Order: sequence, then structure tokens, then C-alpha cells
Amino acid sequence: MIQHNAPHRVVIVGGGFGGLNAAQRFRKCRHLQVTLVDRRNFHLFQPLLYQVATGALSPANIAAPLRAVLRHQRNAEVLLAEVANIDLAGRKLLFHGGHPKPLSFDTLIVAAGSTFNYFGHDHWQHIAPGLKSVEDALSIRTRVLKSFEAAELETDPERRQQLMTFVIVGGGPTGVELAGAIAEVAFRTLKQEFRHINTADTRIVLVEATPTILGMFPADLREKALEQLTRFGVEVRAGVMVTEIEPERVVIRTSDHQHETVRAATILWTAGVKASPLAEILARESGVELDRTGRIPVEADCSLKGHPSVFAIGDIASYTQDGKPLPALAPVAMQQGRYVAQLVCHRVSGSRLPSLFHYRDKGTMATIGRSAAVADLGWIKLSGFLAWITWLVVHILFLVQFQNRVMVMFQWAFSYFTRGRAARLITGEGSAQERR
Amino acid sequence: MIQHNAPHRVVIVGGGFGGLNAAQRFRKCRHLQVTLVDRRNFHLFQPLLYQVATGALSPANIAAPLRAVLRHQRNAEVLLAEVANIDLAGRKLLFHGGHPKPLSFDTLIVAAGSTFNYFGHDHWQHIAPGLKSVEDALSIRTRVLKSFEAAELETDPERRQQLMTFVIVGGGPTGVELAGAIAEVAFRTLKQEFRHINTADTRIVLVEATPTILGMFPADLREKALEQLTRFGVEVRAGVMVTEIEPERVVIRTSDHQHETVRAATILWTAGVKASPLAEILARESGVELDRTGRIPVEADCSLKGHPSVFAIGDIASYTQDGKPLPALAPVAMQQGRYVAQLVCHRVSGSRLPSLFHYRDKGTMATIGRSAAVADLGWIKLSGFLAWITWLVVHILFLVQFQNRVMVMFQWAFSYFTRGRAARLITGEGSAQERR
Repeated sequence: MIQHNAPHRVVIVGGGFGGLNAAQRFRKCRHLQVTLVDRRNFHLFQPLLYQVATGALSPANIAAPLRAVLRHQRNAEVLLAEVANIDLAGRKLLFHGGHPKPLSFDTLIVAAGSTFNYFGHDHWQHIAPGLKSVEDALSIRTRVLKSFEAAELETDPERRQQLMTFVIVGGGPTGVELAGAIAEVAFRTLKQEFRHINTADTRIVLVEATPTILGMFPADLREKALEQLTRFGVEVRAGVMVTEIEPERVVIRTSDHQHETVRAATILWTAGVKASPLAEILARESGVELDRTGRIPVEADCSLKGHPSVFAIGDIASYTQDGKPLPALAPVAMQQGRYVAQLVCHRVSGSRLPSLFHYRDKGTMATIGRSAAVADLGWIKLSGFLAWITWLVVHILFLVQFQNRVMVMFQWAFSYFTRGRAARLITGEGSAQERR
Repeated sequence: MIQHNAPHRVVIVGGGFGGLNAAQRFRKCRHLQVTLVDRRNFHLFQPLLYQVATGALSPANIAAPLRAVLRHQRNAEVLLAEVANIDLAGRKLLFHGGHPKPLSFDTLIVAAGSTFNYFGHDHWQHIAPGLKSVEDALSIRTRVLKSFEAAELETDPERRQQLMTFVIVGGGPTGVELAGAIAEVAFRTLKQEFRHINTADTRIVLVEATPTILGMFPADLREKALEQLTRFGVEVRAGVMVTEIEPERVVIRTSDHQHETVRAATILWTAGVKASPLAEILARESGVELDRTGRIPVEADCSLKGHPSVFAIGDIASYTQDGKPLPALAPVAMQQGRYVAQLVCHRVSGSRLPSLFHYRDKGTMATIGRSAAVADLGWIKLSGFLAWITWLVVHILFLVQFQNRVMVMFQWAFSYFTRGRAARLITGEGSAQERR
């Protein structure tokens, strides 16, 4: 049936896991016109970003240009722009700098993701950067590599040790993965490359405020992860609060209320995320109140209360299932994206609506390093080599483009056999010598 | 024989083709202590930098960490530092910011390369960037991709055409390669990716001041190159002087003294190089006068006049052979680096000195695009597909690390069959929407 009226306009904000999956799912709905808005021109496979930060992969290996992904989907277009405001009553988006001109929508899907949460200590972010964007990853890579370069030149032993000390705040999957990867860089990759320092002296401290790392995993896997991390040379300090971060030092408070200062030239932050500021706009426009981490609560079909054709999915949304909010994880965003696209598609064509959204948890994984990981797949719990292989296969399968898969597989195989890391470039601001 | 006196200290400034080849050649001279000084922690395979600038390769694909390359060479170390001054009388190097402390040498090899030459118009460099570093390449990549993004949003047809016009100043190999690669991006890679512009309307203008592009090639190959470039959609303007560059416009003077303005949002500069500023220090210290492009003339053994254990090689040196100065090309630097290392090695061990340096020209090549190139190998002249295959093989062989070779080969194969370019990320400063 040819539709003679103007096509239904769907606007998706954000080309991450949620937004891109929604856009792709609309492929089958030719009677809709889809615009995917993002301020970046690529989808980023964030679960592997820590490998860019530690020199194992290049940014392009874990990114896919949005235009390339949607090239053959004739009902979809990509708009590179940054949303400044959302006008729910007027059904339009406004952009920063007033350019391009406002974009009208019939259906809106907000999948703008999350940003770092410094829990009120926003001044820490310059000292202890987080890991969300390609730029973050490259700047962390430069910091880590430059610390070793500076240590090689340092004659004062105390200062040298400080340069070779890394503190990672936050014992979730990203913190564990970063700590494990830095351990590999220090104890394996760089092993024979310096002449004046012994990289075996590197100290890597993983600080977690709750009593255990990887809190979302069952106790036995948490134990295994702790064992494996310790074996890799990472010092795990759980149940310890960070009370102050200053340049090159972290003050922590242990469970018995003692304060301790760790002197470290490199401090990284993976302790929490909060929803994108677009959630605040949705809250203001709809009157719905944000949750504790700034996420916007949504209805059972992922729509905004009182706005059945405005949806929020992924990290920006708080979806309650079985009485608990779903975690801010890629699989949740992907499943929500596909669900909402299907719902909108059916609704516009007037066909039977799909059943309500239900998140199917297929498992959680975290990698620690070479041949070491933990995986909780629900029906089976894995650790060590088997978990690591599972992690590898799943991550390769979920990479967006064919080329990325082959490139990443090749780089991993190379790293596995040589313990080398090819993408160890000190680039960008401050790449030339500026150590003082 | 164990040497009981202090080892002879060789310091090499610059980890490019000349410096790295010299350092590696010292592998066989265990009685020497080698320090390779560079302000970057990697060797960069500059001949492929234009492929990073046009999104075909990632920086790490054409870079090799210096420490990794020299890891097993126990008599060599890498020093990440920027040279501020050279004290020939005191036989030591001084570094920027006074850190690290001065480095003494017995033998010095200066291989600091070259930088852009704007021929007195240094203010043009912000408008028309050149291509020497990873940062240059990434910033050009961002500029080129953002131009198309801005054109997609532009409603004024004249302004849209300006956004889709690219001027490349300089018809040497780099200019030809950049022009050809941008043509491929515009006419092939991006072909189906936009919805409001037709990338076939892209205008690519290659401006050369001398009467022909690729002046160093024989006339028939220059003709072929021109033919191939034109077929790819590049507008070649030879015998045309650039008289003014302003933001988004270039004024050129044709051979009949007419002035013409080309409106182009992207202007790139490949029109010339001059020696690194370290040449001036060598000139001042030795009393030798620099040549027209700032290069330091050297003796028949690449040493500085009056300083038999101070050498200058590669782009920074002017070496006269058969009455003509050698060109600033990678093979010259590589052969000089190996020669000087051998000379120093023999001299220190007291064995017979090698014959004087003589550059063996193995040929010159330039690629234009998919299946199109020219190659003058002396005994044979090639153009088109055969020249292109030769170019591919030679460049793969000369890439420094095994992993780089495989990665680049794979990416090229992928691009060849899909006409895709994976590394099309808009990153760094100004990557978010800042079009006005």
C-alpha cells in the first residue's frame, strides 16, 4: 500500500547501542522517515574503549561511521548536530548554535547515554579523567605512556615510584579491565623497553568503595576475579572511600576510618555514571522526576509518562522490571532500541502491537587480562581461560562492521602471541616533551 | 674482547628514516653505546600519512614505537626529549625546559628531518595546513569530513559548493596522492551516504606553480599521471602561482597574469619543505652556511665540515652528488643512516673504513588512486595498474613492523573490494558541532 500522506517522522537522538539498534530496526518500516542525530559521526563500541586507552587497539577499530552503517537504508538519514533543547509540546528538537534549523518529529526516541559521575566533586575530573569518548581514551593512553617515559628520566627514587603508580577509582567492569590492561602494559609489553627503570616496580591500585569489586557478579566469581587480578599484580583495595583527589595524590579512608595517601602520577576514574543532561530537559518538559543518577523513569513501553510517542532508552532511562531498575548496560539499550522501533513501526502501520518490553539478561562478563575473565551467563558461571574465550567471541560478534571484526581479531591474535601492543603512540596535546 | 675503557657514545637526533636506520645498523657494533633522541615515541612511516588524512588507515598502522623497535638491541636506548641546543665544542645536547640534563656524545648524528615551507607566508599555515605529523593528518581528516557534513546541512547552493571544494597547493607526490585520495573519498566512499548533497559535485583543484605536476618524473609519466588524475575527477592547474590564501579562498595567478579566486572551505598545503630548525644551530656552531631551503651542506662522508664525528643525514642535510644536491626523500635518508653507522662503527673499532657514501637511486613512485600510479624505476617506467601494484608491494615491504604490514594489507584489500574507508572518525578539537 502506498501512503499518500507525509511519512511519519521518527527522530532518534544518539547513535550508541540503543539509538543505532532502533535506527537499523526501522529498516523494515519503509513508511517511516528516520533521522538519527548524533554529535559524533560514528558509533563507538564502548566496551572495548579501555583497549584503546591502553594501546591495544586504534579508535577506528572500535568505531563505525554512522553514515556507512545506514548507507543502504534509504528511509534513514544521519544528522551530525548537538541537541540543545527538546520542545515536546511543539514536537521539535533545537540545536546548539541554532544550526541546523529546528527538526520536527512525530515520534522521538532519546538514547543520549550517560556521562561520568564524580558525585559532586566535579573538579576531580581534570585530575582523574574518565573513559567515555575516543578523546578520553587517547588522553589516558598518552598519560600512561608518558608516566613511564618520565620515570625513565627521573633520578629521585621516590618521585620515580610515584610516576610508576596508577590508581584506578571504581571496581566495576571498566575499572577491573583498565587495571588488568595497565598491568599487562607494565609487566609484559614494556618489560624490556626501558634501560633505567624496572617496569616490574609498577604499582597499580584499584580502589572500590563497596566491600567487593564487580558487585553485580555472584560471590564465587567476584572471588575468582580478585584472585586473578592479584595474580596479575593489581593491588585491590575494596571497602575504601576516596575522600580527596589532588594532582598526583589520592586520599582514601579505610573501613576502620584511617586516612591514607597514595601518591600516584596517574589517577583514573571509573566510579560511576550519570545520565546525559538531556534527561533534565525531558524531566522539565514532562514533569517526570529524575532518579538518583539523573535517569528519567519510563513507562512499561519505554515511553515518557503522558507522551506515548516520546521514548527514552538505554543509559538515559530508568526502566523498572520486577520491581528493580535495569542496569545501565549495552544489552539493555540494544533490546530497548529494537523494541521501541518495532512498537513505533506497528503503531504507525496500524498492525498488532508487540507485547510489552521485557529485558532478557543473557549474562554479564568482565575481562581481567590475558586468559583471565569472569562470565556469569545465568545457566553457567565461568572464570579464567574459558570465560576469557567467551568474552572474546561475544565481543567480536557484537562489533558493528565486518572490517572491525577482522582487524580486532588480528590485533588480539598478534598481542596474544607477542604480548605486544601496536597502538602505543603518544599523540595530541602535550605529546612533545612537557614534563615540567 | 672486552673493552675496559668507557664505551664510545653515539647520539642520534631523530627517529625518522635516517635516524632509525642508523640506530638499527649499530646493532652489530656492541662496543658502542647508542642513544636515539626523539620528541615523539614512535617512528612514523610518512609516505602513507596521506592515507591517515583521508581515513583509509589509522595512525598506529603506520607508526612503530621506537622502544619496541629497539627493544632487543641492548646497546641502544631511546630518549623522549626535544633538543633545544647543540654544543659542538662541549660535545653535548641540551633539551627544552632543561630536562633531562645535558647529554654528552662522542659521535653525533643529526637526522631531524624537515618541516613545511610556506616561503615567507607563515600566516598561511593556519588556513592551509600541511601534512607532516599524526596530528596534522587527523586534523586534515576532520576538516575534510566536516566539510561534507556542513555541505549536507547548507541550503545556499553557492556556499554548499564552496564547502565541497578542496584546493591542494603543490603538485609533488604528496599533493597528487592527497588529491587522488580526496577524489576517492568524495566520488566513491561517500557516494551513497548523504541525502541532501550529491558528492559527485565535489571539486578538487590541484595547484602547481611549475609548468607540470610531479616535476621529478620523466615527461611521459607526468603525462600519464595527469591523465589519470583528470580521469579521477581532479582539476589540475599547473603553471599557476598562489598569490594569496585567506580563510576559504585562494587567489591564483595564471601564466597570462590573470588573477582568479577559488572559493574553497578546505585548503591544504604540500608545496614545499624546509629543513628542521636544528640545521640553523649546526650552521651557527660550525660556520657552514645553509642552502636555500635551510639544509646544512655536508662533506662526502655526511659529516659536518671541520667536525668529522658530527653527521647530518636525511632531509636536514644537503649532500652533493654528481654536482647536484640529493632530493629530500626517504631512501636517501635510509642509505645515509646505514652508511654513517657503518662508518662510525668501523672508525671506533679501528677497522678499514667503508668507501665514500654514494646514493643509489632505486626509483621514484607516486600513487594517484585505485589501480593508478606512476613509477620510474630507472630501467623501466610503469604507469596505471602495474605501477600501482609495484607501489603497494614496495610500501608494504618498507613498513617497519610485521603487524603493521598485515594490518595495512588487510585494510587495503578491504578498501579495494568495498571502496570503504574505515578510519573516518571526526575526532579531536572541534569534533562536536561547531560549524558557525
